[in-house]
Amino acid sequence: MDCIFCKIVKGELPCEKVLETENVLAFMDLYPVNKGHVLVIPKKHYFRLDEIDNPSLHQMIEAAQRIASAQVYALSAEGYNLLMNNGEVAGQEILHAHLHVIPRFSNDQMRFGWRHLEYSEGELAQYGQRLRESL
Amino acid sequence: MDCIFCKIVKGELPCEKVLETENVLAFMDLYPVNKGHVLVIPKKHYFRLDEIDNPSLHQMIEAAQRIASAQVYALSAEGYNLLMNNGEVAGQEILHAHLHVIPRFSNDQMRFGWRHLEYSEGELAQYGQRLRESL
Repeated sequence: MDCIFCKIVKGELPCEKVLETENVLAFMDLYPVNKGHVLVIPKKHYFRLDEIDNPSLHQMIEAAQRIASAQVYALSAEGYNLLMNNGEVAGQEILHAHLHVIPRFSNDQMRFGWRHLEYSEGELAQYGQRLRESL
Repeated sequence: MDCIFCKIVKGELPCEKVLETENVLAFMDLYPVNKGHVLVIPKKHYFRLDEIDNPSLHQMIEAAQRIASAQVYALSAEGYNLLMNNGEVAGQEILHAHLHVIPRFSNDQMRFGWRHLEYSEGELAQYGQRLRESL
């Protein structure tokens, strides 16, 4: 499979590695939203979050937690975003699941476009019910 | 403490609950980015990801995974974003850690503002080293 993240996992492409565990690799994003931006990926090829096996999932979120702490302490980040785009419609560009850990600074110019919709009467509960029935 | 998410956990404020585990609660966001947007929170009050205990962390990401699947199957979402804003500088408005699970649709008008910086020569490796030393 011609997946650049699989090639990084196999060592066929280079990366600036930050952390590695049995099932997970974390490395510097080459096109950072802010400098110090890290990607956390499962070594096994999965497309989206909903496919990832449990040990890989746990190691991914634990790696993100450690990296976020390092961004705070080593880079003096005042905060950080976790972002995972699942599916092309959600902005996923490389179709191997990856979690962004992005350090944030009060003087950065990064703004997530964030808008809010409104539910009509009863609609919130309907959505809740549809989700609960599918869990 | 005057935290609205703690009040929801205690049942002092209502929510449209989607899922509950020993350490985690998930409920509908009242101000959705897209309809079907869910928040996953640890029941214990934590400010940011880097503070969350391991069992709560695992249950949060597992809940997010189940909810994302439900958004795909019950709401016909074509994808989804996970987003966790940690710190006010990162856009965190309620200072009790929470993970957004946002269903995405090809006709939605949601766009994350996403920009990229460039590293100068050698800078990527320096950032990598600083992070590794603080893990």
